[in-house]
Amino acid sequence: MSVFTPVPEPALAEWLQDYAIGRLVALKGISAGVQNSNFFVTTTLGRYVLTLFEGMTRAELPYYLHLMAHLSRHGLPVPGPIANRHNEYLGTLQERPAALVMRLSGASEMNPGPGHCAKVGAMLAGLHLAGLSYGRRQDNPRGPAWRSETARAVHDFLPADERRLLDAEIAFQATVDLARLPAGAIHADLFRDNVLWETGDDDEAHIGGVIDFYFAGFDTLLFDVAVTVNDWCSTPDGRLDPARSAALLAAYHAERPFTADEADAWPAMLRAAALRFWLSRAADFHLPRSGELVLVKNPDEYRDILRLRITNVPPLPR
Amino acid sequence: MSVFTPVPEPALAEWLQDYAIGRLVALKGISAGVQNSNFFVTTTLGRYVLTLFEGMTRAELPYYLHLMAHLSRHGLPVPGPIANRHNEYLGTLQERPAALVMRLSGASEMNPGPGHCAKVGAMLAGLHLAGLSYGRRQDNPRGPAWRSETARAVHDFLPADERRLLDAEIAFQATVDLARLPAGAIHADLFRDNVLWETGDDDEAHIGGVIDFYFAGFDTLLFDVAVTVNDWCSTPDGRLDPARSAALLAAYHAERPFTADEADAWPAMLRAAALRFWLSRAADFHLPRSGELVLVKNPDEYRDILRLRITNVPPLPR
Repeated sequence: MSVFTPVPEPALAEWLQDYAIGRLVALKGISAGVQNSNFFVTTTLGRYVLTLFEGMTRAELPYYLHLMAHLSRHGLPVPGPIANRHNEYLGTLQERPAALVMRLSGASEMNPGPGHCAKVGAMLAGLHLAGLSYGRRQDNPRGPAWRSETARAVHDFLPADERRLLDAEIAFQATVDLARLPAGAIHADLFRDNVLWETGDDDEAHIGGVIDFYFAGFDTLLFDVAVTVNDWCSTPDGRLDPARSAALLAAYHAERPFTADEADAWPAMLRAAALRFWLSRAADFHLPRSGELVLVKNPDEYRDILRLRITNVPPLPR
Repeated sequence: MSVFTPVPEPALAEWLQDYAIGRLVALKGISAGVQNSNFFVTTTLGRYVLTLFEGMTRAELPYYLHLMAHLSRHGLPVPGPIANRHNEYLGTLQERPAALVMRLSGASEMNPGPGHCAKVGAMLAGLHLAGLSYGRRQDNPRGPAWRSETARAVHDFLPADERRLLDAEIAFQATVDLARLPAGAIHADLFRDNVLWETGDDDEAHIGGVIDFYFAGFDTLLFDVAVTVNDWCSTPDGRLDPARSAALLAAYHAERPFTADEADAWPAMLRAAALRFWLSRAADFHLPRSGELVLVKNPDEYRDILRLRITNVPPLPR
């Protein structure tokens, strides 16, 4: 969440001398996000977002920053990181790894309709296609290995019926053949709060920004589609809304057609994506890391989504 | 000017398959610009400007495109070129070198006040500072050598008083010691129509885009300041407006302080910048290149500006 590490204005003003974006005009903490300390920074030349990375290693950050740069320069509305005068994206501020990115315009839409979902589907396909030419590789930090490990860690905290659900799902996922599915750089967290919408010339909302790539990694593209559908297309009780999910999937399919293997794997991927968020929320709930003021989200939402995806999933478009 | 080379929609739709920006939605010619064919391109994923380069060689284009990419990734509102799936900025369309860049928002302000001029001055300094770390070098195509050559070419078309002015100015400029002035990548054409303004949260206009880098090159930074001041700070009769030029220069100076050598050279640079546009307009007027539908601008405007800068120039801020 929000701001863990305070940044005094004089420290930032001095740090900005390493950049060519002018002098500091205003600094404001952002009360959103669950991982890092984020700030809006206004200078004499523009508007930026400053992130101080909390609990991430300096070694893993170039993957994210260069991915954002790659997607941005391939024409997608992803905040490009700002290079300093030494041509580097990653600096150090208040003893934390720190980076500036462009501030994109727009606001989140928390009640999307099928029109929004279609644009999100097309954009996700665009991210996947542009990501295919990204040269770096770092595995999805919340991929299959993490899921098995986290399942073991939370297992004993769960009531009996949830343990049975978890054991069965981990066993089921182990049977899924992922090797035949197209893979690449995925966002892995394309929830409603990570898409910024602006109103265009034609009065139709369009996507002005896709943000927060700090869960990105190499994984099957269909897993990313499943993460996105589970958030954008679920009703409050966790069921898939047919109009929204059909719109999202058709628009994705129009940009990057699904393969036959992906159609087969679709129900399993929706379950894997639900499992991933059930597990991370259960871990945050039962195993909070000391000293962190993380906003704990209710794990039950994704437990229910997992249960519902086991019983009934409409097919992918072909 | 405008569109020299028509682009049929089917040809563009096919060409866009090399990019990851979705499918073509709309294509519209732009009736501005004096050199290339420009189009607004809307796809399922975003909005872009397509340029077909007319009469520029493929060899000189990477300097411009990489400069725009460099400035953009250093946080300045410059349209970044879009890389295709082969990670290249420059393609071929309708047998012309062609590139897509991001479409930035905002509109030109043709009646700027001191507030606008201050923001332009700060932005120009930011461009210069960010340009210092740009690795490529290509001389200003309208630099001292071009000026001497073009003066010879137009000389005999001019009336006697203009010949005397031109001869004297060329002789004077040859005495100016440029070696002591800071140099780097300059825009060299930062006229009012190449800055896009948007209205911000605070209801104050800010610069949303600096466009058209296709006259950029390596030259003295102060020459670029002079080009900018001659356009942004001149009254309709060519005199310098004291409030606007003071605002522009003070804001530039706050970001990149002028050196003592620059203060000495300032009157000469204003004259060099006026000479450059007088010469190019005189050449377009007297020596039109065959088959081109270039909008010919009146050379007299910059002849008068040159005359006025010889007699009276306020000093640079120190």
